[in-house]
Amino acid sequence: MSADDVELLARATWSALVEPGDAVAGTLVGLLGAVQALEWVRAALRDGPDLAALEDRHGPLGDADRRRVVTAVARWAVRLPDCDPHRDLGNLDRLGGSLLVPGDPRWPSALDDLGTTAPFCVWLRGEPDLGAVLALSAAVVGSRAATSYGERVAFDLADELTAQGLCVVSGGAYGIDAAAHRGAVARGGRTLVVLAGGVDRAYPAGNARLLETVVGCGGALVSEVPPGSLPTKSRFLQRNRLIAAAGQATVVVEAAWRSGAMSTAHHAARLLRPVGAVPGPVTSMASAGCHRLLREGVAVCVTDAAEVRELAGAIGSGLVAAADAARSADDRAARRRDVLDPVSLRVVDALSRRVPTDVDRLASLAGVTVAEARGAVGLLELDGWAVRRGAGWVVAPVASP
Amino acid sequence: MSADDVELLARATWSALVEPGDAVAGTLVGLLGAVQALEWVRAALRDGPDLAALEDRHGPLGDADRRRVVTAVARWAVRLPDCDPHRDLGNLDRLGGSLLVPGDPRWPSALDDLGTTAPFCVWLRGEPDLGAVLALSAAVVGSRAATSYGERVAFDLADELTAQGLCVVSGGAYGIDAAAHRGAVARGGRTLVVLAGGVDRAYPAGNARLLETVVGCGGALVSEVPPGSLPTKSRFLQRNRLIAAAGQATVVVEAAWRSGAMSTAHHAARLLRPVGAVPGPVTSMASAGCHRLLREGVAVCVTDAAEVRELAGAIGSGLVAAADAARSADDRAARRRDVLDPVSLRVVDALSRRVPTDVDRLASLAGVTVAEARGAVGLLELDGWAVRRGAGWVVAPVASP
Repeated sequence: MSADDVELLARATWSALVEPGDAVAGTLVGLLGAVQALEWVRAALRDGPDLAALEDRHGPLGDADRRRVVTAVARWAVRLPDCDPHRDLGNLDRLGGSLLVPGDPRWPSALDDLGTTAPFCVWLRGEPDLGAVLALSAAVVGSRAATSYGERVAFDLADELTAQGLCVVSGGAYGIDAAAHRGAVARGGRTLVVLAGGVDRAYPAGNARLLETVVGCGGALVSEVPPGSLPTKSRFLQRNRLIAAAGQATVVVEAAWRSGAMSTAHHAARLLRPVGAVPGPVTSMASAGCHRLLREGVAVCVTDAAEVRELAGAIGSGLVAAADAARSADDRAARRRDVLDPVSLRVVDALSRRVPTDVDRLASLAGVTVAEARGAVGLLELDGWAVRRGAGWVVAPVASP
Repeated sequence: MSADDVELLARATWSALVEPGDAVAGTLVGLLGAVQALEWVRAALRDGPDLAALEDRHGPLGDADRRRVVTAVARWAVRLPDCDPHRDLGNLDRLGGSLLVPGDPRWPSALDDLGTTAPFCVWLRGEPDLGAVLALSAAVVGSRAATSYGERVAFDLADELTAQGLCVVSGGAYGIDAAAHRGAVARGGRTLVVLAGGVDRAYPAGNARLLETVVGCGGALVSEVPPGSLPTKSRFLQRNRLIAAAGQATVVVEAAWRSGAMSTAHHAARLLRPVGAVPGPVTSMASAGCHRLLREGVAVCVTDAAEVRELAGAIGSGLVAAADAARSADDRAARRRDVLDPVSLRVVDALSRRVPTDVDRLASLAGVTVAEARGAVGLLELDGWAVRRGAGWVVAPVASP
């Protein structure tokens, strides 16, 4: 067995031994390495925890830290007999999956930002080069109890982000998550589903076909716990930190006042990843969480894919300016008025559409001098705003606002 | 004629002589007083502008300033012959209106924040004590082309703000403005309509009955131009600064990408008044302006009257916290879980609803020590989360999430 294999088996063991987000285990592996840390645990179960060995690497441990380590070891003792990385890897193999560990060129280094709560490994089905998949990415998350508005927005956002080459990361749940994954696969693009349980468990069962489609479209299902693991509530909460870390930005499309998506947003903010929230009707409780994120300054307001892409720091953020320009196309008339100086604007406003107005009257109505009115109306005639009729002027038909 | 009358007549004249927002006129009146400034103008029309007299008060004028003054005087010359404050005040009198000038105890000092562009006077129909009316106030503005969503939100906001004793300020236009005024009068409360034209002109005509109702409910119609004045486009734009100054905060309910309400919001921001924007569906262009204000950091997200009231700095901003608490009433179950420590949470998640689980298995499933599982499940039983069955435990029916 090569050193790589030993490392892989040790990390697979760690992922089965401890609950996701166990910072004591993360610290131990960080100090000693996955293999040695596991040996340290086995020795601890025989002879008691060798805190001195940890202190050699870490420096002196306080009383609270010592207690945390002792308690953690006692917890792991319960599970260690059940850990069988060969069995778990065999199961993964039968699913056609891959196990990624740090050091693998395909390892998504974004997850390292989680520090002592980074996953030990990633159990994966589908495209194994997660590093490449996540190089341009955005998490799109939200409530299970989504409205048709939220699902439409999530679908459209994911569709457009995918068209722009971003990988949409989400949790595979009903509602917003599913709509986001569907938008990505509708474009035939790669999307990443981060599961709370094992990658052999389509959860929720109603999304089983969608999850297969994700794999079929070059995307992936990933989990930090081995195949066969149950998606427990605490794993759902921990899973949110992985979604937040995997995306270069996190966007909440719809979230009730309390929602798992809120936790994902806060994880992203803690990781200094940009967070966006899509607003919705204030009459809909489904958007109350998004509005809360905006009010509290956790998230910025995002309304389309270009703004999300800008948030994710992807190349071509000039797209936002382009979208703004397009959006204003429908008020070109208003912009046309903008080119007029204040005097001309007031003179235009003083013109009637039917009754000709002479220069003296124009000056009085517009509150400008007679000379200004004469100059302005002459230029306005040249520019097609005003038409001379008899001794006065009227608004040119085409210029009417 | 008393000195007060002379001042009143001078200010009425200024309001007819110059276009709203004329900073040269405002500066002149600021330097010399309304009466003397008018005499200065009359002398200037006879003998040319006495810039030295201005410099005595102001300090040396640059070339650009001198040109601005000379041009301004030439503009005013056109209108001065038409100015007749006695006629205008007579017309106001026939309408049962009042003219407010600075120094009047009823003058709304909030307007003074506009500095050199503050109005010279306020022509008013309805409740004349504007200072009292505006002591607690919020401007609620938005697009004419509003959606039923926007009108509903504006109506409800105004209704609740009025119930909380705030005066709703708006522009009397179709759409959001009208909905806001309607919400206020539906509560039988006072609301302020800031018109771009004279207070004798119900504009738009379709809102004539609404404007009469506003007066009948103890509110007021106000304008900075005399009765008979037309609501021109430039006066609409200038009117927005008065709305922004009159409200202690400005809230934009619905605004397209370019909208008069956007100008009101920017005026309010320039006056350092808090600005709120009500979000809406990103699929609705009617909310695009609101989202733009949020994205650009001009406005904060507001979703209900309590948040607007907080923005306006009114007493009792604790209402927001209360509303938050009420909003969360429907997820008391989720909050209930929050009181559990992480170990108990994992033990609860490991419990089945039907199949009893013993302590050893609980410990393994939850990833805790056997002692922790035993302790946790005992406390969970006491707290009504778990029920003992045979050698194990199941979730208590009432605790199921």
